Amino acid sequence: MKKAIVLAAGKGTRMKSSSPKVVHKVCGKEMVNHVIDSSKKAGVDQIIAILGHGIDQVKSVLGEDVKTVYQEEQLGTAHAVMMADKYINDEDTVVVLCGDTPLIMPETMNKFFEYHDNGNYGVTVLTARVEDPTGYGRIVRDENGSLVKIVEQKDADENTLKIDEINSGIYCFNGAYLKSSLQYVGNDNAQGEYYLPDTIEIIKSQGMDTGAFLGATIDELMGVNSRNQLSVAEKTMKLRINEMHMTNGVTIIDTDSTYIDADVEIGNDTIILPGCMLTKGTKIGTNCKIGPYTCIENSVVGDGTSVKKSELIDAKVGMDTNVGPYAYLRPKSDIGDNCKIGDFVEVKNTQFGDGSKASHLSYIGDAEVGKNVNIGCGVVFVNYDGKNKFKSIVKDNAFVGSNANLVAPVTIEEDAFIATGSTITDDIPVGALAVARQRQVVKEGWVAKKREKDNKK
Amino acid sequence: MKKAIVLAAGKGTRMKSSSPKVVHKVCGKEMVNHVIDSSKKAGVDQIIAILGHGIDQVKSVLGEDVKTVYQEEQLGTAHAVMMADKYINDEDTVVVLCGDTPLIMPETMNKFFEYHDNGNYGVTVLTARVEDPTGYGRIVRDENGSLVKIVEQKDADENTLKIDEINSGIYCFNGAYLKSSLQYVGNDNAQGEYYLPDTIEIIKSQGMDTGAFLGATIDELMGVNSRNQLSVAEKTMKLRINEMHMTNGVTIIDTDSTYIDADVEIGNDTIILPGCMLTKGTKIGTNCKIGPYTCIENSVVGDGTSVKKSELIDAKVGMDTNVGPYAYLRPKSDIGDNCKIGDFVEVKNTQFGDGSKASHLSYIGDAEVGKNVNIGCGVVFVNYDGKNKFKSIVKDNAFVGSNANLVAPVTIEEDAFIATGSTITDDIPVGALAVARQRQVVKEGWVAKKREKDNKK
Amino acid sequence: MKKAIVLAAGKGTRMKSSSPKVVHKVCGKEMVNHVIDSSKKAGVDQIIAILGHGIDQVKSVLGEDVKTVYQEEQLGTAHAVMMADKYINDEDTVVVLCGDTPLIMPETMNKFFEYHDNGNYGVTVLTARVEDPTGYGRIVRDENGSLVKIVEQKDADENTLKIDEINSGIYCFNGAYLKSSLQYVGNDNAQGEYYLPDTIEIIKSQGMDTGAFLGATIDELMGVNSRNQLSVAEKTMKLRINEMHMTNGVTIIDTDSTYIDADVEIGNDTIILPGCMLTKGTKIGTNCKIGPYTCIENSVVGDGTSVKKSELIDAKVGMDTNVGPYAYLRPKSDIGDNCKIGDFVEVKNTQFGDGSKASHLSYIGDAEVGKNVNIGCGVVFVNYDGKNKFKSIVKDNAFVGSNANLVAPVTIEEDAFIATGSTITDDIPVGALAVARQRQVVKEGWVAKKREKDNKK
Repeated sequence: MKKAIVLAAGKGTRMKSSSPKVVHKVCGKEMVNHVIDSSKKAGVDQIIAILGHGIDQVKSVLGEDVKTVYQEEQLGTAHAVMMADKYINDEDTVVVLCGDTPLIMPETMNKFFEYHDNGNYGVTVLTARVEDPTGYGRIVRDENGSLVKIVEQKDADENTLKIDEINSGIYCFNGAYLKSSLQYVGNDNAQGEYYLPDTIEIIKSQGMDTGAFLGATIDELMGVNSRNQLSVAEKTMKLRINEMHMTNGVTIIDTDSTYIDADVEIGNDTIILPGCMLTKGTKIGTNCKIGPYTCIENSVVGDGTSVKKSELIDAKVGMDTNVGPYAYLRPKSDIGDNCKIGDFVEVKNTQFGDGSKASHLSYIGDAEVGKNVNIGCGVVFVNYDGKNKFKSIVKDNAFVGSNANLVAPVTIEEDAFIATGSTITDDIPVGALAVARQRQVVKEGWVAKKREKDNKK
Repeated sequence: MKKAIVLAAGKGTRMKSSSPKVVHKVCGKEMVNHVIDSSKKAGVDQIIAILGHGIDQVKSVLGEDVKTVYQEEQLGTAHAVMMADKYINDEDTVVVLCGDTPLIMPETMNKFFEYHDNGNYGVTVLTARVEDPTGYGRIVRDENGSLVKIVEQKDADENTLKIDEINSGIYCFNGAYLKSSLQYVGNDNAQGEYYLPDTIEIIKSQGMDTGAFLGATIDELMGVNSRNQLSVAEKTMKLRINEMHMTNGVTIIDTDSTYIDADVEIGNDTIILPGCMLTKGTKIGTNCKIGPYTCIENSVVGDGTSVKKSELIDAKVGMDTNVGPYAYLRPKSDIGDNCKIGDFVEVKNTQFGDGSKASHLSYIGDAEVGKNVNIGCGVVFVNYDGKNKFKSIVKDNAFVGSNANLVAPVTIEEDAFIATGSTITDDIPVGALAVARQRQVVKEGWVAKKREKDNKK
Repeated sequence: MKKAIVLAAGKGTRMKSSSPKVVHKVCGKEMVNHVIDSSKKAGVDQIIAILGHGIDQVKSVLGEDVKTVYQEEQLGTAHAVMMADKYINDEDTVVVLCGDTPLIMPETMNKFFEYHDNGNYGVTVLTARVEDPTGYGRIVRDENGSLVKIVEQKDADENTLKIDEINSGIYCFNGAYLKSSLQYVGNDNAQGEYYLPDTIEIIKSQGMDTGAFLGATIDELMGVNSRNQLSVAEKTMKLRINEMHMTNGVTIIDTDSTYIDADVEIGNDTIILPGCMLTKGTKIGTNCKIGPYTCIENSVVGDGTSVKKSELIDAKVGMDTNVGPYAYLRPKSDIGDNCKIGDFVEVKNTQFGDGSKASHLSYIGDAEVGKNVNIGCGVVFVNYDGKNKFKSIVKDNAFVGSNANLVAPVTIEEDAFIATGSTITDDIPVGALAVARQRQVVKEGWVAKKREKDNKK
């Protein structure tokens, strides 16, 4: 079985956060879950997360299939891996990953596993070549290119310091050799910690080959220890996601100001204008025009639809519909095809039929709106009496005049017509007119008289 | 006559689009039109576009003065140029351009033409020097610096591969030599295509000098073959436009997030805050404050006006007026001087006089509003009865109370006063008060009784 | 005493502005004030600004503690410093700064002062090492590293041109030597100007050591002469400020599109989403979620509060409150804890009690709103009668129905209930219901009849 041990016990002091480091998000997903998801995509069957600081917060973001163990004291990377001992079998392939390297790619891990398998290594370390290796553990190979050992910066002599191949901190172990080597790792060093790289020489001494796979880019190995680094990781992943969508035939006007979560789907020939945030599994159709400055969370948008400067949360919009600018679709808004949801309109928990329009300044909540309904300007679906919420029904082809109030529960039948400024409290039959307003009275000369009066004051 | 042949027949498979490549836009203009407009600015008198894939879509974006010819099969660049044969006369100067290089600058073309003319060349190729020439055709010059030939990457020997001067794919021909050389170009090569660079050696063999003008930057030669490259071209052109405005005395707070079409005009001492899109020939005055997050399309904004977080389409705004935040001016909005169009206000097809105000939450459509009119909060100009649209007139100094509805057609005379919450259906005389609402009734103890009743349920 | 002479007399022709160069802003603060504030942070006790072009505009942005002198003609840097003669005493330490270098850091100045003091120099020049020194004055040192002179580009021989240590234009003087050397500076040069670097050789000839402190980065020395350079300075300072907040534990999703003034405070574990502008001394608490696309000016936001796509000016918001999307809090809005100010809501000059809600499409102006009040949708606080503004009071637990108007002055007592669509002109007692609307009338078959009639037309 292929297993991953994810080191996620650290606090991340430099984050200056009340949350442990690995739950901080990159492109909408916790760092630790980026690492876990990448390893799953690379074929890992079981995840064991080593937790410590903020264990409850970390647990709360992990999937139910993730095993967790508690590392009470952080005594080094080998110590962390020891905690997972009971989950490791001799025949397993075990990759050790860091919960704070969210950029690691599944493709890289796949090749890493292949290299490890093909070489029949006891342990393989993933490496990268860098311009400036200062601070990293250096990869020492023998004349055949086999891995000899990893030397930390502080222990390196002059020649070793010149090596520009560095340790990623990611290792792949044969389960049996992982278990057998861990027991020999000591903590006789300045920090008094148990270091995982020490297993390499132990496994070598046990007669197994040890490998080093130069297959990562330094970008994807980036560890996040501060919010500054978090913002760099965010930027890298953002561009990676945007590149993927552009390759798929999506036009992105400004890749720097387009923020798309990893799990979002977008059809080809859709244009994403600047300033959009598309998050939490949102699905956008083909030939759409999204943005600018549109946020869409966990929503579905049909083909050919335009969503300009608007906000969608847990909503659904049909095809060839125009939304915005400045519209707000809240949860359970289900807008049909060929609709218009215009400026300063809020919709919530409403089915809104094909061809219907709410062009401006309206609130439509807890309603069923039929087809080809016209909702005038300033209309309010009054769904709340201070205690309970009620539902309104407006059937096909009804016309709701401007600044009308529909006091729920109320049903407006087909073809009904509501006069401007009416507060509707009772049902309206098919094809009927409903009026609920006072007649206009004119008082001539009133303004002049009022002015006179005001001046006397 | 100076003529340009623009190669625009390709599909652009990597764009993954149902539209041909050259109609994709950069900074609001189709790529092919960027190339055409640049060549016109450089003095080209006639454009001949070679079309193939998606010919109707391309034709629909071209100006009427552009000649088009159809290249049914794409058999190479020389084959494409042959299609334009009937438009080429011996005495013409003919530049061959690629429809997918939108960044080519008129200044560069001008110098290119000059070089071609001064050298009296049969053909001149535009070249650039690059850091990494891999993949490009190399420019081979003789000891005098004259152009000998262009060698493609795959045909290049070791020494030729080291040449860092590359072919731009842009050529300038003497009309007679273009015509005479094209007939000798063969397709005896791996691809079976007719290559335009082959004309160089042919023309040379005809005894004419051939030139190479090292006058382009690699940036402006960039060909767009994917959406990823499209976004790079967009960024380059965006910054080029922004630099031009800053040089002219416009402050742009963030050049990365400011999106201005090529044909927009902005007066000096105007500040553009982040996130603005100024498109389609918009004209902004001096001393304005635009943004943040303001989109202005095909509109005119007068001196000293501020437009904050708003949307203008086909609108006109006078001087020293304040618009936004969150205002929406739709087509034929004509706002005067010293006005206020405030938050959550939509205006459409309306003349709005000097000094008038609509401060919040109103819709003003199909109206004539005089000077110094006060439109209260929540006012709706009810212009639509479900079938037709009508016009409202509100004359100077009128006061329209909050949440009032003006049911068009209706005329509010000067100095008239509309009481809060009134639905106005009839004209109001000069200086009159109009009221159309019910008197307030108070039911004491009602809330307690209702609670009791609710609790019994 | 430590004094700074700030050169701020230039016009800045390349800015193409009606304002003098140094009043143009970087991250919300005039360039000259950045220089002044940095010098104050580095311990400078008195500022003397040399003004010329646009003196009134510059004076109007300077603090009252800044001494100003007028340089009628700009005859060189030494001439400018001479203008400040009367403010310089022999025992002063005098730093000469340029008003157009807004990025100079206090830390750098501090070290510069220390170096000057420790070396007991008559004058010390601040220097930087650059990749391309073209155009800068070169620092010539002797074999001991002591400053010999500064040589301008045009006067430099081949060897001097190779020097990559350049003059920052920032000098620190011993007061006595500044005064004594200035009188010997001549204008016998091509420009006919009095150059401050000439003091170096004069002071040296007077037997004092002269120092050169290689302590600045070229970034912070950047002089701003055009709007293009202004935008570069803006970007550099923006990133500097954002880095500081991230180091302090604030998550900034996109440092490129986050615009924070220098004097803003933000608590840790707050997340700043893209597109926010936080300006003029705004204070944000901990655990807040700000943005995207939120502008907050001179406001205070409590812990745990979320402000989404909104605009706050001179406002105060309590803890755990939700604002937006698309809310507008204007001056003197004082929102309590656990409140909701939802979409398309404007608040102005209002105290809004804990637990109260205005969820959508309302205007609340000049009011006192108690605790747990519910403001329905479309409610207008009618505070203006065309002449005067009045105040409304809504007490605890009141319920204001949708599309209601409260015509100020009016008081709604505790627990009162206002029916939907009512225009309230009179006070409402405790627990009473107020209705002010017409009963609904239904005209059956009206729509069909109207259609018939319309068709006859």
